[in-house]
Amino acid sequence: MMESPQSASLSEEDLHEVWPVLSIDERLEGFRLLPPAAADDFFVGLSARDQAELILHLPPGERRTWVRVLPPDDLADLVQSVEPEHAEAILSQLDDASRREVNVLLAYAEDDAGGLMNPRFARVRPDMSIDEAIGYLRKQAREKVETVYYAYALDAGQNLLGVLSLRQLFQAAPDKKVADVMQRDVITVAENTDQEAVGQLFSEHGFMALPVLDEAGRMKGIVTVDDIVDVVQEEATEDIQKVGGMEALEAPYFEVGFFGMLKKRIGWLLVLFLGQMLTATAMSSFEDEIASAVVLSLFVPLIISSGGNSGSQTSTLIIRALALGEMKLKDWWRVARREALSGVVLGVVLGLVGLLRIVVWHTVSDAYGEHFLLLGCAVALSVLGVVTFGTLAGSMLPLVLRRFGFDPASASAPFVATLVDVSGVLIYFTVASMILRGTLL
Amino acid sequence: MMESPQSASLSEEDLHEVWPVLSIDERLEGFRLLPPAAADDFFVGLSARDQAELILHLPPGERRTWVRVLPPDDLADLVQSVEPEHAEAILSQLDDASRREVNVLLAYAEDDAGGLMNPRFARVRPDMSIDEAIGYLRKQAREKVETVYYAYALDAGQNLLGVLSLRQLFQAAPDKKVADVMQRDVITVAENTDQEAVGQLFSEHGFMALPVLDEAGRMKGIVTVDDIVDVVQEEATEDIQKVGGMEALEAPYFEVGFFGMLKKRIGWLLVLFLGQMLTATAMSSFEDEIASAVVLSLFVPLIISSGGNSGSQTSTLIIRALALGEMKLKDWWRVARREALSGVVLGVVLGLVGLLRIVVWHTVSDAYGEHFLLLGCAVALSVLGVVTFGTLAGSMLPLVLRRFGFDPASASAPFVATLVDVSGVLIYFTVASMILRGTLL
Repeated sequence: MMESPQSASLSEEDLHEVWPVLSIDERLEGFRLLPPAAADDFFVGLSARDQAELILHLPPGERRTWVRVLPPDDLADLVQSVEPEHAEAILSQLDDASRREVNVLLAYAEDDAGGLMNPRFARVRPDMSIDEAIGYLRKQAREKVETVYYAYALDAGQNLLGVLSLRQLFQAAPDKKVADVMQRDVITVAENTDQEAVGQLFSEHGFMALPVLDEAGRMKGIVTVDDIVDVVQEEATEDIQKVGGMEALEAPYFEVGFFGMLKKRIGWLLVLFLGQMLTATAMSSFEDEIASAVVLSLFVPLIISSGGNSGSQTSTLIIRALALGEMKLKDWWRVARREALSGVVLGVVLGLVGLLRIVVWHTVSDAYGEHFLLLGCAVALSVLGVVTFGTLAGSMLPLVLRRFGFDPASASAPFVATLVDVSGVLIYFTVASMILRGTLL
Repeated sequence: MMESPQSASLSEEDLHEVWPVLSIDERLEGFRLLPPAAADDFFVGLSARDQAELILHLPPGERRTWVRVLPPDDLADLVQSVEPEHAEAILSQLDDASRREVNVLLAYAEDDAGGLMNPRFARVRPDMSIDEAIGYLRKQAREKVETVYYAYALDAGQNLLGVLSLRQLFQAAPDKKVADVMQRDVITVAENTDQEAVGQLFSEHGFMALPVLDEAGRMKGIVTVDDIVDVVQEEATEDIQKVGGMEALEAPYFEVGFFGMLKKRIGWLLVLFLGQMLTATAMSSFEDEIASAVVLSLFVPLIISSGGNSGSQTSTLIIRALALGEMKLKDWWRVARREALSGVVLGVVLGLVGLLRIVVWHTVSDAYGEHFLLLGCAVALSVLGVVTFGTLAGSMLPLVLRRFGFDPASASAPFVATLVDVSGVLIYFTVASMILRGTLL
């Protein structure tokens, strides 16, 4: 694709487009064809995994250039994404000060605010004049501060006193003091705040950056919104994959190996398969009923899946509401009442449709014998029971998981469906036995 | 909770915490207890729906103050979220220039780049010196420019010539020209670019803002990353809800009314229920087989659900990969081969577990008669067939939907499960008939 030197004017966007399907050699070749400014942007925009792959395939001289393009938080991510034996090779390319910064960041968990933060932020002193502050920011930008949407006013002990947006700084009269203009009521996060919670805060407030404080109230760095886009994307991907009934992947689809992918999938499938075996056990205790009325068995898939579907729907709804913070654990009773009622209404509608189907089909084809109406009622009542149970179980399961410290998203659609299938068999045959005793049975 | 005037030092975070469960009167009361600077931040951070609700409950005098706090893109969202008769009441509070800006934005679709963009951005001329440019930006910040992470260099015809980050501006020598420092290779989006694609770009490149151009290449505004966090969150929520088998909600869980919620849920449940009726039809053509070997019916739920589970898993995986741009339509053949092979491997594993279960159970309880080994083989082979089919169907369905212009996320877990259930019944009984003819049948 890029054999001739004439195609040297490769654009950043073109390379992004084909990147996922290129081999590492093609990636290197393409990367070197980018104009210098575009190469910078392109490199910074890559995922940590891709940055690491490129860097480890570059000769040591070039390696140093690219390692130094990255801010400390991105470097920490990069180091975390490579094998331990390569980490040293990357860290050794840094100057002492940067290496120290990266080593501090490496001590944080990857998905904490500390692991996301950039220790280089713009600081001012509260007693500076606005003009002095702007001059001081220009100096910091020349040195190494990456992001300058906000300037943070710190005292000598690194305690955060206030914050100014660049806009406020630019708007203020030049001879005013920072302390006159800054906002003192600052929303902050702790070093060990989970990244999902940090994402919440950004999404609710629309910040560009949030300061990270240690336990003693000293400012350690900032988390910027551009990193949060990835966090939000990642957390959603994890939840969606779990909802689909598999373990979350750590890389894009085509970058996960064939057997790596199977490993992420087989676990839950096995658990669910073993769980579903209980349906066979449950049904076997009704073998006599089935033998005397084979027609009963025809509706088993319809009935259990109506419970499974309503349960999947509900659990997914609740999982997302929990992830977005729209719902708290303490709302469980409100949710239970609402979902139980929803389940009844949905169950009545589906049950009536089921009854109608049996009556119409029987009228057309005489398929269900003289007791078709009783059969229809048994099916309708079972659907009502199963849908109500499915909806209620699907709503409570994510809350129970969260309550005991597990990820609510593990209450996946297939998991809830399997749980409800087993109960569905029991509900159906119990209802049918009661209604049809003396007629069909 | 907030009855006494002593509690007047309510913080922004406290109010956020309780906001979802407050009535509108409590919300107003709480909002008025915030210190002025915090109230500003709080208001700007609210969703458009909540902003509209507050504003419409304020007396006209206060209303004007708060309407004018918002930048034009947020105002456009707010106006779009209220009933048409209230839109006028809000627009009339604006000065003429702002009203014109908002009206222009209202002409864009809400989920296009045009609908997300802010028409107020920081501009410089390419022939300005760096010092002049900084001075000019300070002037613009004082007037009305909301976001100043980047300054855009435009010619007289509003064509975009280049971009400078504030950091680059601050880093450059004061006497250099903007044209010397600016980056000319700028990534832009068109007015009608879909917000999901815009979100992709931000997530891939880590931008703080992207310029929006019209067809003639004139710059119309910028989309900023803080709005993108919400976009990414929203799109993920839509996908998750669809994957769970319901229509996407437009508001948080507790803000959707009971019947509004039912409406979003009953549609798919009915479609799936009608689809599942085909399982009853399919099974009825095997009534004779079931009558002569009731034991066959016991494994129906196990077999069809193993297909449904592997199908749900696969479709969810593919839906997310498509949404993240990890996979394109043209990769379909690569995906099909890979998933077919995965399906076979997963099917072999689950099938063997199924066979083992039947052999072990039979040895323990003598439950399945003399032909238990044949029965076990029939079940194992059916599981293999159903899982392979489920995996393949689950992978292709989202791609087919995308190909014909539908949302791939409509290939929800319950939808795929239902599709596979019907085929599962056919596969099972066909396989069983072949293997067991002359023995059990």
